[in-house]
Amino acid sequence: MMTMIPLFLSLLSLLLVTLPATLASHSPPIFFPGATYPSSSLKQDDTLKKNIPFKTQFFPQILDHFTYHPKSYIIFYQKYLINSQFWHHGAPIFVYTGNEGNIEWFAANTGFLLDIAPKFRALLVFIEHRYYGESLPFGKDSYNSAEMVGYLNSQQALADYAVLIRSLKQNLSSEASPVVVFGGSYGGMLAAWFRLKYPHVAIGALASSAPILHFDDIIPQTSFYDAVSQDFKSVSLNCYQVIKGSWAELAAFSSQGQGLAELSKNFKSCKGLPSVDAAQNWLWAAFVYTAMVNYPTEANFMMHLPAYPVKEMCKIIDALPPGETKLSKAFAAASLYYNYSQTEKCFNIEHGSDAHGLHGWDWQACTEMVMPMSCSSESMFTPYSYNYSAFAEECMKMYGVTPRPHWITTEFGGKQIEKILKRFGSNIIFSNGMQDPWSRGGVLKNISASIVALVTEEGAHHVDFRFATKDDPNWLVEQRRQEVDIIQSWIDEYYCDLRS
Amino acid sequence: MMTMIPLFLSLLSLLLVTLPATLASHSPPIFFPGATYPSSSLKQDDTLKKNIPFKTQFFPQILDHFTYHPKSYIIFYQKYLINSQFWHHGAPIFVYTGNEGNIEWFAANTGFLLDIAPKFRALLVFIEHRYYGESLPFGKDSYNSAEMVGYLNSQQALADYAVLIRSLKQNLSSEASPVVVFGGSYGGMLAAWFRLKYPHVAIGALASSAPILHFDDIIPQTSFYDAVSQDFKSVSLNCYQVIKGSWAELAAFSSQGQGLAELSKNFKSCKGLPSVDAAQNWLWAAFVYTAMVNYPTEANFMMHLPAYPVKEMCKIIDALPPGETKLSKAFAAASLYYNYSQTEKCFNIEHGSDAHGLHGWDWQACTEMVMPMSCSSESMFTPYSYNYSAFAEECMKMYGVTPRPHWITTEFGGKQIEKILKRFGSNIIFSNGMQDPWSRGGVLKNISASIVALVTEEGAHHVDFRFATKDDPNWLVEQRRQEVDIIQSWIDEYYCDLRS
Repeated sequence: MMTMIPLFLSLLSLLLVTLPATLASHSPPIFFPGATYPSSSLKQDDTLKKNIPFKTQFFPQILDHFTYHPKSYIIFYQKYLINSQFWHHGAPIFVYTGNEGNIEWFAANTGFLLDIAPKFRALLVFIEHRYYGESLPFGKDSYNSAEMVGYLNSQQALADYAVLIRSLKQNLSSEASPVVVFGGSYGGMLAAWFRLKYPHVAIGALASSAPILHFDDIIPQTSFYDAVSQDFKSVSLNCYQVIKGSWAELAAFSSQGQGLAELSKNFKSCKGLPSVDAAQNWLWAAFVYTAMVNYPTEANFMMHLPAYPVKEMCKIIDALPPGETKLSKAFAAASLYYNYSQTEKCFNIEHGSDAHGLHGWDWQACTEMVMPMSCSSESMFTPYSYNYSAFAEECMKMYGVTPRPHWITTEFGGKQIEKILKRFGSNIIFSNGMQDPWSRGGVLKNISASIVALVTEEGAHHVDFRFATKDDPNWLVEQRRQEVDIIQSWIDEYYCDLRS
Repeated sequence: MMTMIPLFLSLLSLLLVTLPATLASHSPPIFFPGATYPSSSLKQDDTLKKNIPFKTQFFPQILDHFTYHPKSYIIFYQKYLINSQFWHHGAPIFVYTGNEGNIEWFAANTGFLLDIAPKFRALLVFIEHRYYGESLPFGKDSYNSAEMVGYLNSQQALADYAVLIRSLKQNLSSEASPVVVFGGSYGGMLAAWFRLKYPHVAIGALASSAPILHFDDIIPQTSFYDAVSQDFKSVSLNCYQVIKGSWAELAAFSSQGQGLAELSKNFKSCKGLPSVDAAQNWLWAAFVYTAMVNYPTEANFMMHLPAYPVKEMCKIIDALPPGETKLSKAFAAASLYYNYSQTEKCFNIEHGSDAHGLHGWDWQACTEMVMPMSCSSESMFTPYSYNYSAFAEECMKMYGVTPRPHWITTEFGGKQIEKILKRFGSNIIFSNGMQDPWSRGGVLKNISASIVALVTEEGAHHVDFRFATKDDPNWLVEQRRQEVDIIQSWIDEYYCDLRS
């Protein structure tokens, strides 16, 4: 039996617990695409279920597509959401390749598909990723041991999608309907990989904010935190310098007798901080997630936040008098992230919640999704070197398995992707917003005539997938228009081929 | 514990044992691409090992690429053969994606790679397929139970190849070397699929006689036996009619008191025939395999045979006097297949041998490689309808698993392949010889500028992969020349891209 570690702390917590204090105090939380979202102020997904225009279905899915043990044949029920209000027989099917959480949450935050469905007369299907939400092969025991959770990975998930889509089309007697897959973040990685591995199932993929190059040594390990820092620096050099300077002030509390008590008071901690590191992680998360969702409109994806929240944070920092400490300024900025709605009297800093059921990502990160990250001295965070051995050791302790750090690039490629996909494959849009630190692991340049990159300087984490609003800036309207046009061209070509 | 059934009988034997006699007597043996080769007269592969110019290596391979159980990490030693006499650093690597047998056998019968290696200065690597030859994850227990053999399938094999090739290039410090994969028969299916699934590992594939469309309902179930029949009919209508008429004569022995004894004598059976069906299967196999290896030169792939053996068989039939029975003529023709060398005094008709370690195919056929086949009334065999339920039931009895008849087309596609691959992928040659009944499940038309079909009317089962001989007909010389030219163009393009 394994002990599940609260999501927000995820891999960070184990570093804190087990590594030497000097290392631990400099280790960054690991922010996975879409996972480890602190979401204490979000409504539970039960509420979402009632408010999204989808019917819930369950598909009998096979446990292991790639072995033939008696156990491989175990059937579990995979959840998917379906909206057929715009669809007519033979028209396209748009499938969202679910990522690491309850599928309702992704459906609620991918309004783009509902926005464009009428134009395409598309059937919408959101498929939940195995081992998330209610799609648990062994119910509440699904994470009890490596024997149970060992079937959780991206290749099994892709095979699930292929099997489910094929069956669905057959049941609808609409086998000629073209399928386009959509996904954001890890879901975007899955969408892109799905098009590459199952071109006979999907005619194209829109992969939004999909860091498929965040593996091995393809991009510099410092990219992610450098990008976060750049977001703040480009808004205000002072803001960047204040945050960068706050860590030393924070660390100083460690050596004071009453340091932790004082810090707890300063940080409005509800129950008292368990450690100085907890405060650091809490700040760190606020800056990272705010950079990720630096949206041009008010939004409530991870937390309720105003438009351009990085700018708002820096406004707070810049407006405080020079006499205030850097740490108190950083705290004030982070409070925007955790308490924009002004409903919190105190903060539960010691742990986050897991309203969307994201904790399975920890397992994926400890097996296949090994994304090396470190902090450079130019970043606004404390410098930190990636230590694979320590990471692997912790994964072994936590789950009894060792990571396979080179597997994703072996299975899906990534190295020299532009040279490979220039000569192979077609019909993939990689959309990225450069405000999103994950963009640095994305495909940012056109690769071929039909494997293209749509990059917006002001965009953030899969902003294109959000419902259109009247306040959307022109670049966002334009980005979505391009996506629709390209998808339309795939579909036109498909029907043209079909007739010929 | 499972009882292993002698290879040659393979799935046929269980049909005979368990199905109603009326059905069993009409059921065809199932001739898999490359498997169920009767090879009693062939040298053991130990002899081959000494005679092929390759060094034997073993690679520590992971048992299960697609799950993360503690057991998934078990390491087994995968054999590969390597020849570096023509290679220089940075030059191409030609990999043969091994199929269902000892890798030495495929190396000995793929002289084409040794023939062309000097021109390309290529490194040659023949990788043995897991669960064949010496690449047995659990040694002699590898086939003991579904728990042991459950990891034997094409997706795991492809992943093995990707992992091994990546590691090999790294060890050679020659990561920029372009890799081209080659395979014949099932190995050709693997080569084509490898290019489709791992384009970042191989720049192209030559798939010879690869029946990747022999699944589901893509091609008519009768194609295979119709093609065998066509081979004989096109040489001599009388020959076709004699063979077609022989089955009724054979069946008549069933109802005679001393029928089996008489038949045993007529068929020169060493130990006496166990059943009339055994004689039927023995004849059937002779005609099918002779059609497959209807090579234009004397060859010793499955059996030692003269050039154009179908013509030679029909010459025997046509030369016999009208007074002889059809059955005795058919027997005389079959004797050419089993005894061209004139060394056999009697025939071991009741079972074949498994000199090349091919029996694992039975497992693959009972899980993923479900290729529906039936015999039409136009074929020269007895009519037979495909009975999936009976097949599945037998697989369950034999291995404790049920087949997944739609999995291959879900995982690898195949339906409407020309429409799919017209817009996706590149650099695959599908070569087929129309004498080979497996050609009917192959890709016989160009799909795109770089996914092409090379079809020869007179070619047989991966004849292009054999060593060139002075007697090769022009069409074969030309086919190989085209293959070399196309591969050269892939390599030129690759190096050009690399420099840019």
